[in-house]
Amino acid sequence: MKAAIISIGDEILIGQITNTNAAWIGSQLSQRGVEIVASIVIKDEVETILKALKDICNIADLVLITGGLGPTKDDVTKLAINKFLDCDSVFSEVTFQKISQYFQTRKKELSDLHRLQCYMPAMATLLNNNLGTAPGMMFIKDNCTFISMPGVPYEMKDIMTNEVLAKFINSGESIVHKTIMLAGIGETDVADKIENIENSLPEYIKLAYLPSLGYIRLRLSAKGKSETDLNTELDVFIKALESKLSKYVYGFDDITLEEKVAELCKKKGKKIATAESCTGGLIAKNITDLSGSSEYFLGSIIAYSNTVKREILNVASDTLDNHGAVSAETAKEMVLGANSILKSDIAVAVTGVAGPGGGTIEKPVGTIWIAVGNEDKVVVKLLKGMNDRDKNRIYASNIAMNELRKFLEDI
Amino acid sequence: MKAAIISIGDEILIGQITNTNAAWIGSQLSQRGVEIVASIVIKDEVETILKALKDICNIADLVLITGGLGPTKDDVTKLAINKFLDCDSVFSEVTFQKISQYFQTRKKELSDLHRLQCYMPAMATLLNNNLGTAPGMMFIKDNCTFISMPGVPYEMKDIMTNEVLAKFINSGESIVHKTIMLAGIGETDVADKIENIENSLPEYIKLAYLPSLGYIRLRLSAKGKSETDLNTELDVFIKALESKLSKYVYGFDDITLEEKVAELCKKKGKKIATAESCTGGLIAKNITDLSGSSEYFLGSIIAYSNTVKREILNVASDTLDNHGAVSAETAKEMVLGANSILKSDIAVAVTGVAGPGGGTIEKPVGTIWIAVGNEDKVVVKLLKGMNDRDKNRIYASNIAMNELRKFLEDI
Repeated sequence: MKAAIISIGDEILIGQITNTNAAWIGSQLSQRGVEIVASIVIKDEVETILKALKDICNIADLVLITGGLGPTKDDVTKLAINKFLDCDSVFSEVTFQKISQYFQTRKKELSDLHRLQCYMPAMATLLNNNLGTAPGMMFIKDNCTFISMPGVPYEMKDIMTNEVLAKFINSGESIVHKTIMLAGIGETDVADKIENIENSLPEYIKLAYLPSLGYIRLRLSAKGKSETDLNTELDVFIKALESKLSKYVYGFDDITLEEKVAELCKKKGKKIATAESCTGGLIAKNITDLSGSSEYFLGSIIAYSNTVKREILNVASDTLDNHGAVSAETAKEMVLGANSILKSDIAVAVTGVAGPGGGTIEKPVGTIWIAVGNEDKVVVKLLKGMNDRDKNRIYASNIAMNELRKFLEDI
Repeated sequence: MKAAIISIGDEILIGQITNTNAAWIGSQLSQRGVEIVASIVIKDEVETILKALKDICNIADLVLITGGLGPTKDDVTKLAINKFLDCDSVFSEVTFQKISQYFQTRKKELSDLHRLQCYMPAMATLLNNNLGTAPGMMFIKDNCTFISMPGVPYEMKDIMTNEVLAKFINSGESIVHKTIMLAGIGETDVADKIENIENSLPEYIKLAYLPSLGYIRLRLSAKGKSETDLNTELDVFIKALESKLSKYVYGFDDITLEEKVAELCKKKGKKIATAESCTGGLIAKNITDLSGSSEYFLGSIIAYSNTVKREILNVASDTLDNHGAVSAETAKEMVLGANSILKSDIAVAVTGVAGPGGGTIEKPVGTIWIAVGNEDKVVVKLLKGMNDRDKNRIYASNIAMNELRKFLEDI
């Protein structure tokens, strides 16, 4: 089964929003062995949508469309579908009842716009939307199945999960992905170390490098008839790669550093905390993105000002005066202070110059100290970031999580 | 000038990474009056790339291509370009010198892969990449200008900024966007309030609703010859929309709630802090995303555990016992505690059940209390979120920022 994604909306083209819908749909289909052959973003104009619908049948037999089904006037997808199917709109009593009920329970009044929303292409089958007023639509033309969904991410996900993935996905061919997660090594160094393995890969297995700030995903993808065979074969290559890169492997299959830290904290019964200056809460935010993090994460002190470093984290005035806020010594005392006030077993601290301001010749923008430790031992690490605030913050957060992970593995 | 974006990479199609490159390129071109007619994502296969290059000339006269230029073996863009231009590769001595130097300053060894990277399509002009080893390429075919860049976001941005935007962008037609930022109102209610204005818009002015969790962007886009005329005309409609929606307008032109809060803090000379439970640092992270935030942001207490609420934020044990951690009373005491320990003028606090666990019949998942205040007054607000951890955290953070903004505006 070959699938394509069409995202409709000027707001995506002009970058006002990022196309997370296409990423989510792609990952869901791919996990189920469906090959995604293309993903396109187009303007919300009837003629443009019509042309895209016509063209896409040539390369895909399943087309997922998002956007342009809301109650407001800039939504024209249904008009394009009418033209494509050469049919009219009919009033859907079922949809009207659903919308009415939705508004009744929320004690809101129905407007004319909502009534207008109930007109649907006559040749489309409606798909239930549990989280919004616009239903999805399914229609078939030229042996190609089309699914049209609202652009609101959670409504799209609801329809995809309950209507599409459950009912329409049936691929003859399997695609298996396996990913090795690496931290503390660069892309080219990885390529050098695994050159022989890469050269020995058969035609139907592909290797991709997916570098992020502070870590790399190394993905093997295999395509063939038998999922079991592919899995077995990939496992052999994964083992080979792992043995070449063992020092840098922290996990598999898209596990994040935060998830690995969660696993280690639970296994070893440790409570953690953070003390953050330049990352400003990003590490705590990443840790608490995971549900269940309250089991091992106690809290943080975001010490953006020196006063907070001194008065809450108990960093000595002498340390701040002699070494500065951005120093190994301050980072170390932040760890000790956090463990003491938050009653954690292990804390990680970050202090640095994220930029664009605040750099000096001695400590240019990108100078970041990371410390991690318990009452017995504190490890410090100096990062040399770049001239970009956002990247420095993300990079520091990821490296800090990797240092925390290493500390947890060693104790 | 009509532009299209081609993003190359299986990792985007299968959703392993989100296509932020296309969003950034789209916003940069759009700001300069270039219309973006399509954005497509394709597999990194020579034949697929070749077909996309051929097809795209029909709809665009500028094509921005990202991905597939790195030193690793899964990068095939250059092979496709050779076929498209019907030319061979030549060794670029300039590129080799640059890479050698890059590695010399980093005291790293050059590998064969890097040498391989220096072969370039003979008919392409190289574009300087200040932040990486793979240069960009420019080539022209069928009156269409193609720019090929690495997929690494900061390298792409460097080439776009210094080589492409500065040299190739020249659009005959102007596109002007103006955006009103709204908080505290839903999409359909906005549509109802502005129906008459929407109906009176001329053909060449489009209105788009861009709802997010907790706020809405309302965007007017106008297209025509004279940027000055379009600006004047849009201003009239913006004024009209503003008067219908005044209560909910917090700013214009994509200003974030965090930027508005920054503006108000500086203007009124106030120092702020946060006390976060279920948002776990997200609000502090959002505030410190802005450079210069140290001027008005002191820090945070992330009180994920009740012990931290009690011992650091000084929330009374009685309050926690009688009302629970998720209550107006606790939120209020978190504000007072934060202001006291962090020495801030105003603090905002959030405590709630983000989910998926922790819900009860009385306080189901999505129950979130927000409080904001100074030593004289604390305002509390109850949110009813949804059954989704990530969305609840983002929603709570945005609403908390809006409450903080309103508090700052009123004092």
